[in-house]
Formats: sequence, C-alpha cells, structure tokens
Amino acid sequence: MKKITTGMSSVPGFTFSAYECGIRYENKLDFCLIYSQKPCISSGMFTTNKVFAAPVKICRERISKKIHGILINSTNANACTGDSGYDNVLKLTAEASRMLKIPADSLLMASTGIIGKQLPIEKMISSLNPLIENLSADNGSKIPLAIMTTDTKPKETAREIETTLGTFRIAGTAKGSGMIAPNMATMLSFIITDAPVRKETLDTIFRAVVERTFNAITIDGDMSTNDTALILSPVSDRMITSEADIKIFSDALFDLCRELSVMLVQDAEGGTKCVTVTVKGASDGSAAKKIAKSIAQSLLVKTAFFGCDPNWGRIACAAGYSDTSFDPADLGISIDGFDLIVNGEPVQTNTEKLSQIMKNPGYEIIVTVGNGDGVFSYLTSDISYDYVKINADYST
Amino acid sequence: MKKITTGMSSVPGFTFSAYECGIRYENKLDFCLIYSQKPCISSGMFTTNKVFAAPVKICRERISKKIHGILINSTNANACTGDSGYDNVLKLTAEASRMLKIPADSLLMASTGIIGKQLPIEKMISSLNPLIENLSADNGSKIPLAIMTTDTKPKETAREIETTLGTFRIAGTAKGSGMIAPNMATMLSFIITDAPVRKETLDTIFRAVVERTFNAITIDGDMSTNDTALILSPVSDRMITSEADIKIFSDALFDLCRELSVMLVQDAEGGTKCVTVTVKGASDGSAAKKIAKSIAQSLLVKTAFFGCDPNWGRIACAAGYSDTSFDPADLGISIDGFDLIVNGEPVQTNTEKLSQIMKNPGYEIIVTVGNGDGVFSYLTSDISYDYVKINADYST
Repeated sequence: MKKITTGMSSVPGFTFSAYECGIRYENKLDFCLIYSQKPCISSGMFTTNKVFAAPVKICRERISKKIHGILINSTNANACTGDSGYDNVLKLTAEASRMLKIPADSLLMASTGIIGKQLPIEKMISSLNPLIENLSADNGSKIPLAIMTTDTKPKETAREIETTLGTFRIAGTAKGSGMIAPNMATMLSFIITDAPVRKETLDTIFRAVVERTFNAITIDGDMSTNDTALILSPVSDRMITSEADIKIFSDALFDLCRELSVMLVQDAEGGTKCVTVTVKGASDGSAAKKIAKSIAQSLLVKTAFFGCDPNWGRIACAAGYSDTSFDPADLGISIDGFDLIVNGEPVQTNTEKLSQIMKNPGYEIIVTVGNGDGVFSYLTSDISYDYVKINADYST
Repeated sequence: MKKITTGMSSVPGFTFSAYECGIRYENKLDFCLIYSQKPCISSGMFTTNKVFAAPVKICRERISKKIHGILINSTNANACTGDSGYDNVLKLTAEASRMLKIPADSLLMASTGIIGKQLPIEKMISSLNPLIENLSADNGSKIPLAIMTTDTKPKETAREIETTLGTFRIAGTAKGSGMIAPNMATMLSFIITDAPVRKETLDTIFRAVVERTFNAITIDGDMSTNDTALILSPVSDRMITSEADIKIFSDALFDLCRELSVMLVQDAEGGTKCVTVTVKGASDGSAAKKIAKSIAQSLLVKTAFFGCDPNWGRIACAAGYSDTSFDPADLGISIDGFDLIVNGEPVQTNTEKLSQIMKNPGYEIIVTVGNGDGVFSYLTSDISYDYVKINADYST
C-alpha cells in the first residue's frame, strides 16, 4: 500500500461534479454527484438514531442493489421532514437516473444541514442538468468542498495497492464537525475504489473498518440523524478473492479511514487537540470500546484537555461510569508513557513534564482495566470556548 | 405540609458543627458533623460508578445499622485512594465515635473534592475535638456552607408535616455543581427528619423520591465517584405506619428534594437556565426517563439553550439516539406550549415569541413520543462559556 495525493480523482471509472444550487446559502458548492458508468457494489454504515433522515432511508433500501452513484447535498439534512422529505429523495434520484439513463433505484443520496426544513426541490431538480453535464474525472476534489458545512478544510485522501489482480486505488472524502446552525454535526464519508470486491466481503470489511475508525471518534457525543459512510466498488468478472489480496485491500481501507478520522477530529468545532484514548486489558474489544467511549465523551475530561490539565481523576471517573465491569484495583492510567495511577493507586509523577505533553496538539492516554485481551482506541477532541460559541451563537 | 425557613436546624434531636480544618484550603469550612443523640434509621442512594470513593464504601457497609450521624468533608473526595483511603475513613469515624461514646460503626461519612489525594488524616483527627465540642442545634446552617465546593450559594430547605402521630419536620441540604479543580461535580445531599419511619418504608420512599429528583437532574452528564444522598430518621417506639401518614411524609420529602434539585440546577457551573424536559407517551416511566435524559444531557441541546436557540432538530435527534424504541412519526415537541413538531412533521410557529420564551431563565420542553403512559421530567442546565472556563482553567 502507498499513499497517493491525487484524492478522489485517483480512482479510474469515476466522474464527479459539484454545483452551487443555493439550497440554503448563495456562493456555496452544496450539491454534488459521484458517478460510475459501470454498476457498483456498495456497502453502507448509517446512523443508528431512530430519528433518521429521508436519504438514510433510501440508502438502506437500495444498498444491496447495483449502484451507479451518490447524489449529495449539504446545508439541508432532509431530516424530520416526513413523507414529503422522502418523496423529494425519490424525485431527485429518479430524475437524475433518467438523465443518466441508469435504473431509477441505482443512485444513493446523502444530506447534511438544517433539520426540519423541506429541500428546495424545484431548484434542485433544475440543477441536475448542469450537475450531470459537468461530470468529469478531474472534478474529484470538488466533492470534499461541496459536502462541507462548517468544516474549516476539505478532507480527502487516497491509497494505491498492489494485488495479484493488478494495481488498484481507494479514495475517500469525509465531512464532520461542521455545523450550520441549527444543525447536527453529521458525519458523512464517501469511499470509492476500482478494486472489485464481492458484496459479502465488502460488507464484512467495511463494517469492521468503520467500527474502529468513524465509529471510534467523538466530538460532542451527539449522534446525527444523517450519519452515513458509503463505499462503492465496481462489478467485475474478476473479483478480488484471495485471502492475501483481501487483507491488502482491507488494511489500505483501514489506513485511509483512519486518516480521514484523524482529519475529522483535528477539524472538530472549536477543537485544539486530537487525543487518542486507548483502553487495554478489558474482557473483550466491546468492553474496551465502551470504556474508551465513556472517557472520550466526558465533558469534564474534554474541558480538562482544553485546559491542558492532567486531571486523571476525571478519566478514572468516566471509566467507572461506563456500562462495563472492571475492578478499580486494576486501574492504570498513563499519558504518553507517564504513569498517573497504577493498580488503582495514584503514583508520583513529573507534573511539569506532564503539563508540557498536554500542551501538545495530540497525545495518547492509555487506560488499563485488567488483564483481558480487549483493546480499543477512540479519538476525541477537546471542548473549548469556541465550541460553545459555534453552537450557541445562532439567532433565528 | 408547609415550607419552613429554619433550614437544617428545624429538626429537633439533631445537632450540627462545622470547622475550618484546612484540608486543602485555608479559611474554608471543610469539615462538619450532623449528629443525633438518638440512634437513627438511615437510607442512602449512592453513585453507581464502579470507581467509587472510600466514604461511599463505608456508607454502603453501615447503611442498615443504627446510625448517629454523618461526618462530611469537602475539598478532598477520598476517591482513587486505595486501601489507605478506606483506612482513613475507618480511623476518622472510629475516633469520632469514641469521643461521642457511640458504637464505632454508627457514623457515616461523605466527601467531595479532589480525586487521588489522601486525606490529611492527622489534621482531621485533631479537628475532631473542636468539631464535637461545638455541636449545637443552632448550627444547622453551617452544614450547607461546609459542604460547598464551587457552589455559589449554600442550599437548605425544610418542611413541616401534620400526621396522626403529631407534627414533624424534614430538612435537607445539598451541594452540587461545585468543582474544585481537579475534581468531580459531586452531588451530596443530607436529609434529616424527626418523623420516625420504618427502615423498609424509608428505603422504598427514599429510592422513589431520589429517582425523580436528584437522579433526574443533569449538569454535565458526568457521574461522580462520590455522589451520595442520605436520610436519617430517629428510631422510636411509635413509628409512622398509616398509609395516609406515609403519603404525607413521602409527598413532603419529594417536595423538599425537588426544591433542592432545582437549587442545584439553578446553581450549575456557568449555567444561565434551568430547563424542564418532560417526556410523555412513552411505553413506561423508564423509557420516558431514558429519552428525557438523552435530551437533557445532549451538548448540542444544552449549547442551544445557552444561545436561546429554538433548535428543536437537536432535541428530536437526541430523543432518537436514546436507547428506547418509538416511532418518529409520533414525535411531538413543544416549548412552553408552542408546538414545533407534531406527529413527526414540523409546524409553523411564532419564532419571535418562541425566542422570547427561550430568553427566560426557565421553561418546559414537552416531548411526546407516542400514546403510552410513561412520563418523566428531567431538569437540566445550559452549557455556557463559563462552564468551559470553570472546568478548563486549572493549572497544576
């Protein structure tokens, strides 16, 4: 595997287009299309929120069909919009499919933005023509721009892999912490590859990768109505099947999604830190994840990160209220190698050096809870004044 | 039932004392004692955090014994202090019991403050003499002062009830949102009464009351290592037993704990609002509580409250990611009577009037999730710049 710098446009077979539709704001790329002339196999991971948006519903219905592309809009989430919201997704994807001469149910859709407002459907329908006309293999870098809300920078990356079937590419983009008041911090990610992978294999790999990347980051603990991660891989006569090739593909996909996850946390609203919280010694991976998540989401822990405060009591406390069982007498906490508590008892440490580490933009906290095999790492940001500012300063 | 203004000192049979021991700071009442010459029945509700403090362990061990009082210190939580921390609680309560000539296991203890530091045990042992010498029925109002950390005001209140056995009083104090960096937002509450209630009855009533008062408030969602609510009621030959009397007592206790809960949320760190989140129509009370808690703890909801932003999408979203099931098509949200979403579809509302309501220091959000009987109200604060400031501005 090697990292390549050509972003979304790295992957042969895909074309891209983005358009300033004016869905909620002027002069903002807010409507875009990722398209493949060849039908693709797709896998998706979606919000588990019971209040999920209309485009999430469509994706769930179509994810097992042959897919030609993804229509995406920012600035309006099309969530809490009832039957009309769902009808609008049907209309948009049907009209685009008609123009592209592909089956009506072969486009997915994703949205991010304000909740509870209907899409400006007429405007969007009439934008489909220029959107489709401008499809080009060179437009890949417009997708990360068009899906941004208040992300401060576009996010895309790519990998190249060598397999027994030849060289392939995987490219991905994501948007995260952005928020257009009054909106959710929706996480969207779109990944494309020219490596042909069977549906069942792709599902298994993608689920495992997302579980340890996009599902292992937290900014404010609020799960959006629209969270969506999709991957498209072309249908082919010669699919990647050997165990070695699958591992190469899977490792590259993990590496790519991990890089996008770091980008998301580094660009957290008002965030100044990207901290890795690793839990070791739990009974299993799921228990380790619960504890890591509890720490990574704690408001007291995150404000301590912002204050560069080596306040391990808050970390111990958040570990303790996670829904898992461990013996507090086994608890160990270290920050970049500096022990703070070992086997449940506090230890003397060089607080000056420790404060220095905590002033870094990133560091790792290792929390040991026993002798089990369960390990899990969570990425988290801090909570700053700016976070509150971004999320409170909205007036109707 | 009537409210009386004499606070903790309202209850005959109890004496109080508080002392500036200098546990962590000078010139701060930080060590106090609530004492009853008569043995008492006690009930307690404690943190469910697996990392719980030494005094919580002692309380759990002694809660079914005959109790004469509660020793309380602020500024040091005695949490994550291992066996030494536990031994210190044993020593302190044993020495105080010896001086008071009561059984060694008849004192409870509670602590709040910094985590991971041993108590200054010598200093505290030598403070027991002046603490006990100064016990007086008139010192009740010193207890709320001595248990404060960064609470901005002491909290106490009392009720008087008429029963077939005569007139009785219930008084209580609490401390909450206060935080001495680096510390947890520990909730402590101590309630005393001269109404004699059987252990089993007291347990049932106290659990039910705490569930809908102290366990139905949230400031930052972090559950402390030290959270403790205790009630003491004297052993007597003539216990309150009639259903009517029990109801009078129980109603007054709820009213008192509810008032203390409102005081806690109103005094939330950096808080500017006290918002009631009421969930109706859930399958049962427990489901309603889960949904209410999910909304009340959402950082996006709480920053919207701070920004006076009628951002109901965040409320719908937080309801959706609670661990319960409901049909989004049944969802309704109103703020002080103004409908925002009815049966899953947004409705037009007077946004100007709504923004006015949200500028008030308190209002009620009613979230309807179906036709069930489950109802639950949560009290929550907003998250402001000052919250971040208080919790981040700590330097070692």
